[in-house]
Amino acid sequence: MNVLITGGAGFLGQKLARALLARGTLSGVDGSQQAIDQLVLVDVVQANDFGDPRVRVVTGDITDPALMHSLIDAGATSVFHLAAVVSGQAEADFDLGMRINLDASRLLLEACRAAGHKPRVVFTSSVAVYGGKLPDVVRDDTALNPQSSYGAQKAIAELLLNDFSRKGFVDGRVLRLPTISVRPGKPNKAASSFASGIIREPLNGEDAVCPVSPALRLWLLSPRRAIAALIAGHELSGDALGTSRTINLPGLSVSVADMVAALEKVGGPEAVARIRFAPDPAVERIVQSWPGAWDDSRARALGLEGDADFESVIRAHVEDELS
Amino acid sequence: MNVLITGGAGFLGQKLARALLARGTLSGVDGSQQAIDQLVLVDVVQANDFGDPRVRVVTGDITDPALMHSLIDAGATSVFHLAAVVSGQAEADFDLGMRINLDASRLLLEACRAAGHKPRVVFTSSVAVYGGKLPDVVRDDTALNPQSSYGAQKAIAELLLNDFSRKGFVDGRVLRLPTISVRPGKPNKAASSFASGIIREPLNGEDAVCPVSPALRLWLLSPRRAIAALIAGHELSGDALGTSRTINLPGLSVSVADMVAALEKVGGPEAVARIRFAPDPAVERIVQSWPGAWDDSRARALGLEGDADFESVIRAHVEDELS
Repeated sequence: MNVLITGGAGFLGQKLARALLARGTLSGVDGSQQAIDQLVLVDVVQANDFGDPRVRVVTGDITDPALMHSLIDAGATSVFHLAAVVSGQAEADFDLGMRINLDASRLLLEACRAAGHKPRVVFTSSVAVYGGKLPDVVRDDTALNPQSSYGAQKAIAELLLNDFSRKGFVDGRVLRLPTISVRPGKPNKAASSFASGIIREPLNGEDAVCPVSPALRLWLLSPRRAIAALIAGHELSGDALGTSRTINLPGLSVSVADMVAALEKVGGPEAVARIRFAPDPAVERIVQSWPGAWDDSRARALGLEGDADFESVIRAHVEDELS
Repeated sequence: MNVLITGGAGFLGQKLARALLARGTLSGVDGSQQAIDQLVLVDVVQANDFGDPRVRVVTGDITDPALMHSLIDAGATSVFHLAAVVSGQAEADFDLGMRINLDASRLLLEACRAAGHKPRVVFTSSVAVYGGKLPDVVRDDTALNPQSSYGAQKAIAELLLNDFSRKGFVDGRVLRLPTISVRPGKPNKAASSFASGIIREPLNGEDAVCPVSPALRLWLLSPRRAIAALIAGHELSGDALGTSRTINLPGLSVSVADMVAALEKVGGPEAVARIRFAPDPAVERIVQSWPGAWDDSRARALGLEGDADFESVIRAHVEDELS
């Protein structure tokens, strides 16, 4: 079987690729485990191929129909669609967000439909589909009311994936990711970038700016658990999902103050002293519109797991990235 | 001011046009009442111009960017976007539904954005955006889970209109219409077509087939109240709408059996004898997925009104269409 990862050069794409190569198999369209013969990583920048002969790196624009149709041929039985323009960037450049987050997602679904063999499609969505007046704990049946263009585009792509699945064009599943923390690497243009930066930079001996108040509550998931959930979400049978292909993944509900307290336990007071609070209303407006927690009982009933606590999330980051 | 109605040859478009011509004014972009200088009715078939010099009839395809941009110029300050491929047809012809219900809606919003003066856009949506496991009474914060392509396309267009409004590109409002009954004219390809047919045909001395069970509960609004709501929805100030531009219009929650009982009061047992029940699983599957009632307190607080009871709806139909 061939597996495609869009956004394959990104941090989640690269971690997922490594995990799939180690695992070696995935469910095929008939549900049986099959060897991964080829893993295609497509991105606008060049992905790492890990020196593994199963990896094929494609550098290109996923809004190009010719490229997308060439990537999703009869052999492509599983697609992980991770490519996205992040929240802050989609807010600043509306047209770019529409092109990547909406048009490319639709093109991908149309290419799968044209291939005709009902590929499995795992699509990542976000806390940003929620907004407005929210209950303390968002339920599966809480209405989407995105307050950012990124959230609106993700919500639209969710609807498309659900309808393409209902019509039998794809076997799709949407995994709504909590904010991922601690991301390795550099800050990005996501409004939530600080949620990794205030942990990652101090542990590297660097200063970090926190643009939101310590009381702000976030819904977080570690990279390790996110990768495990992407694979477990792929392996679910479509029948288990009923009339909705969308799953709110488990997370941790923590305040920024809780995160700082956990950092102190791992990195000491000198790490905490690296954080400077400097409110940024544009960031705070977006992040505050997201839920601080959602009911994840459906995900847990489907076997998807979250993290134990935020201190263990930081310790996992140290193990995976700093050793 | 110039007003544009898409779907201007349709039954709602024609009734709305007549009501606007009689009224003569609408709120302009600054909120003040302004005379309607020109009323443009665009549709794929030729609209009636009522012999009124203010009416301009345009016959064309609203998925054509050149046409859409020519219709929405600096003078077009209000747009009623009613054009749609109905539920049964969008289910049978997926690509046509996507083209009209999604692509044309987006094109219209982009044309408004390009015009630059933040036109008021009134967009009609539907009960069909809901589905799956629903509470007896759907609330404003109940999640959308469309179980038809029509419903998915309407839900996507709602999200676009909300985000274009939030960004300040348009001053939009989405009015979710209950099923409209009693529609005049011929049956159409909407899955809900029977909800008018089982009243309209017997009152015309014709036979009607009901494809759903008498126990099925529908959420209904009369054409008179629908037209009044379209105009009242246009006149609302954008500030009154808060973080969501979407309003569930008031309706009547009635079973098919209730509808038949009301028909008997108006048309006698001979009218009821014209109805034959012949279940159609495809129609029942779609219609059953729609809510039988929703909480309309927000709409009522905004001054939008529903019907008193279904008997008065039938009597209004007789007055408006059969006399």
